[in-house]
Amino acid sequence: MNGALSLVKALVDAGVEVCFANPGTSEMHLVQAMDAVPEFRGVLCLFEGVCTGAADGYARMKGKPAVTLLHLGPGLGNGIANLHNARRAGSPIINLVGNHTADHEVLDAPLTSDIETLAKNVSRWIKKDASAASLAQDGLAALTAAMTKGVGSSGQISTLIIPADACWGDVGPASVVQKVQKVAPPALEKPDQAQVAEIASRLSPSSLILLDRDGLLPEAREAAARVAAKVGCRIAMTTFPARVDSGPGFPVVERLPYFPEQVQSALSGVTHLVLAGAQAPVSFFAYPSTPSELTPEGCLVDCLAEGHQDVAWALAQLMTEAEAQDSGPIRYEKRTNEAPSGALTTRAVALMIAESMPEKSILCGDSGGGAAVLGPAQTTKAHTWLNLTGGSIGQGGPAAIGAAIAEPDRQVFALLGDGASMYTNQALWTQARERLNVITVIFNNQRYGILETEYLRLGVNEIGQEAGALFALNEPSIGFAALAESMGVPGARVTTAEAFQAALTEAINRQGPSLIEAVL
Amino acid sequence: MNGALSLVKALVDAGVEVCFANPGTSEMHLVQAMDAVPEFRGVLCLFEGVCTGAADGYARMKGKPAVTLLHLGPGLGNGIANLHNARRAGSPIINLVGNHTADHEVLDAPLTSDIETLAKNVSRWIKKDASAASLAQDGLAALTAAMTKGVGSSGQISTLIIPADACWGDVGPASVVQKVQKVAPPALEKPDQAQVAEIASRLSPSSLILLDRDGLLPEAREAAARVAAKVGCRIAMTTFPARVDSGPGFPVVERLPYFPEQVQSALSGVTHLVLAGAQAPVSFFAYPSTPSELTPEGCLVDCLAEGHQDVAWALAQLMTEAEAQDSGPIRYEKRTNEAPSGALTTRAVALMIAESMPEKSILCGDSGGGAAVLGPAQTTKAHTWLNLTGGSIGQGGPAAIGAAIAEPDRQVFALLGDGASMYTNQALWTQARERLNVITVIFNNQRYGILETEYLRLGVNEIGQEAGALFALNEPSIGFAALAESMGVPGARVTTAEAFQAALTEAINRQGPSLIEAVL
Repeated sequence: MNGALSLVKALVDAGVEVCFANPGTSEMHLVQAMDAVPEFRGVLCLFEGVCTGAADGYARMKGKPAVTLLHLGPGLGNGIANLHNARRAGSPIINLVGNHTADHEVLDAPLTSDIETLAKNVSRWIKKDASAASLAQDGLAALTAAMTKGVGSSGQISTLIIPADACWGDVGPASVVQKVQKVAPPALEKPDQAQVAEIASRLSPSSLILLDRDGLLPEAREAAARVAAKVGCRIAMTTFPARVDSGPGFPVVERLPYFPEQVQSALSGVTHLVLAGAQAPVSFFAYPSTPSELTPEGCLVDCLAEGHQDVAWALAQLMTEAEAQDSGPIRYEKRTNEAPSGALTTRAVALMIAESMPEKSILCGDSGGGAAVLGPAQTTKAHTWLNLTGGSIGQGGPAAIGAAIAEPDRQVFALLGDGASMYTNQALWTQARERLNVITVIFNNQRYGILETEYLRLGVNEIGQEAGALFALNEPSIGFAALAESMGVPGARVTTAEAFQAALTEAINRQGPSLIEAVL
Repeated sequence: MNGALSLVKALVDAGVEVCFANPGTSEMHLVQAMDAVPEFRGVLCLFEGVCTGAADGYARMKGKPAVTLLHLGPGLGNGIANLHNARRAGSPIINLVGNHTADHEVLDAPLTSDIETLAKNVSRWIKKDASAASLAQDGLAALTAAMTKGVGSSGQISTLIIPADACWGDVGPASVVQKVQKVAPPALEKPDQAQVAEIASRLSPSSLILLDRDGLLPEAREAAARVAAKVGCRIAMTTFPARVDSGPGFPVVERLPYFPEQVQSALSGVTHLVLAGAQAPVSFFAYPSTPSELTPEGCLVDCLAEGHQDVAWALAQLMTEAEAQDSGPIRYEKRTNEAPSGALTTRAVALMIAESMPEKSILCGDSGGGAAVLGPAQTTKAHTWLNLTGGSIGQGGPAAIGAAIAEPDRQVFALLGDGASMYTNQALWTQARERLNVITVIFNNQRYGILETEYLRLGVNEIGQEAGALFALNEPSIGFAALAESMGVPGARVTTAEAFQAALTEAINRQGPSLIEAVL
């Protein structure tokens, strides 16, 4: 058996099922191994950023890693942006990056580059000197590392850089590979119980419990909401959580706004901040005239549990200490929205999606409009929201692939700004090839709207010609429906609410992917 | 004056003219500065790999850098693959990468990542601690570094990571900025003259002069060819040179083939290898059954000049030492090819392009078919060939943008495989926006053909279902003409030689970009 086959077999035995692949010559033995192990599902993506974004979406839904198969430094480079988002999401991912043999690397052939240094930007676990004999074990080590929550924003991404001769070499007597069992995530560290009791004693109506990571799990959120109901304090989630399952019947949780002055306003009057898997709020960007740290002055900050700890346990304990088990939090109630009509607006699109989406739909966000669905969705249907976590746009389309493969019976939506969608438009092709139930909605306002807003925030009153050209996407206009059709995805371009509703209904009834271009 | 404006002014005064941009919030002050300095031409690209590939194409034509404007780590990450190609090409580029302020960076906001480490993969010069007062000077240092040839494959890429407050801060009394002059490349190091004479004395009919970098400049190639004619030895270029200007009247120069066994065969009988800007030949990838180092055993290797030295001078000296000034090398002669007809083949497409292209066309290569134009082009028209240098596909379309902006009066061709073109299909939009004279030809064989070939070279006789799915691009087929139209580029899909010729003639006569999908 060669190293490549031993690696694939070990990963499959350990419970890894999917590989988002864009292989090259140095990965041919891994492709050969995949051919021999059909349980390992290979999903071809035409750009590596689609592979890594798909692996992120898959991990958020499954709680376990998919593999990406990438071609040397440039292949990993193309995947970096969505790996950044995945690191911020705490998504477990295993990158398999093919490399030259060590003997070949020193000869500086054209595709040689410093892959290990590149990988450091996104990976908590890296290995580059695998041999055929070690490769199965290395794969399991990469998996175990990926299943272990990282401190702070260190993430859960493992990158195994594989010398070509580790793939083609014979493993020898590979007893290790015979003994592989499913790898489960290790038990989470629990914060100190006495400290939880102390924090409970300090809760008051001007406290705010800030949730992120496992603090947003439904049972954790429920516990936090009961505490808040009992104490009369607030609960909020961070601006860009990785995953939120919500809808009618779930407790109401605020979401921190985006701009720093809005966050300051939202936190005004808060004297006690309880961090449950969240970090203290900071602004997304630095600005000349607003602070980066947004915790109100004089506010006491208590860390109930860090993101890598057992946040759900800590919130359950807090509920017990606060004697809040039986309190009744405010919940989202089911409501029917009136059907919008006439000219299309972001709000109208959001209302129609929230109203028409099937129960348990998965909503993949990105920059540019899609977040508007979040509000109305709370009062219409149960849903899962996968948010853009790291600010690197071009994530929603790829994440939708991963989510659809993880949950084939659920309807997936990719809610994308026109600008954001273009970074990884190749996602459409994989959606078509795999016949995934993904409906892509392009909120097409023909501009990088957020940049116009940010530019005007500089104090500029008018956008000049040169700057305007850098924000405008209307010369030429992009025909997203035609773009989708070119990659095998049925596309519709609509300009009215009525037409959007018709296209949406058709897309929901269709097996396989669709794209709707909502011209705003 | 703020730092951003001081930087843009200094770069423009020093001779930098173009910025390939995909900015975000942290680069808004740089956008504002561009608005105030209209001589600095901003070119919006919808994906950062297009920015960096365009900067590479521009640099190869102009011999001076363009700027890329990129958004933090993920923006640089998206640009890495084509920066890898640019590093391998020795193309001068200045990356301006916006970053948080240092105070904000430590707060670990969502877009924070280790940009400096990421930049190391491709950059010879990096600075990340600029201040408003230093920024103009830093920009000039980045430019000077980019204009200085790097040793080996270290490249000529400078990456200036700019804290946001260096952009918005006041520069104070910025006398430096007043004194900027055009920055010219420094004089090249000359190899030792006595050594050149010694090498000349060792030349024999079984010598081979291997050319790369400045050894491929027309005057350098002419000198090498005269030496070869006098001695009766061979001259060859490396497999993936960055730029070759050639056509009828230019001396015949072999090109080393791609696969290692082909190179071994080509070098069989060579007893003396003279490296003129080239490195000793190594295979592109390592293989189990062929060596990586391809210099024949026992062959004497002389380094006439390294790539960062004055290779053209060294070859002129060699010509003098060999008394070859008046020798008559074999030259490409103008020839007319018969018009192909019937079913479309790669060869037919190549012949029609070579025959119909205007004089001085620029041919941008990538993986997958386009290299077939190189042979027939030698005997039809003067042309410039910009090759894929680093093996990272998705380069040709972006490079064509840069070449067309550098040389607006010349016809540019992007000759792309279907697989390669998809990595950076967003290049089409910028070609439309800037109305560039780029004709994109897609050699559409609906597969990653090179991978099929490499896979079969493993000794596999049959491609299994899983592997086959990872090489096939036909489920669904991509409609490249429709893809082009969706981004504002007129597209044609053709299946016969007659239709290709008609589409090609129309595209050449059209102002602005076109795409022809040649279904093979």
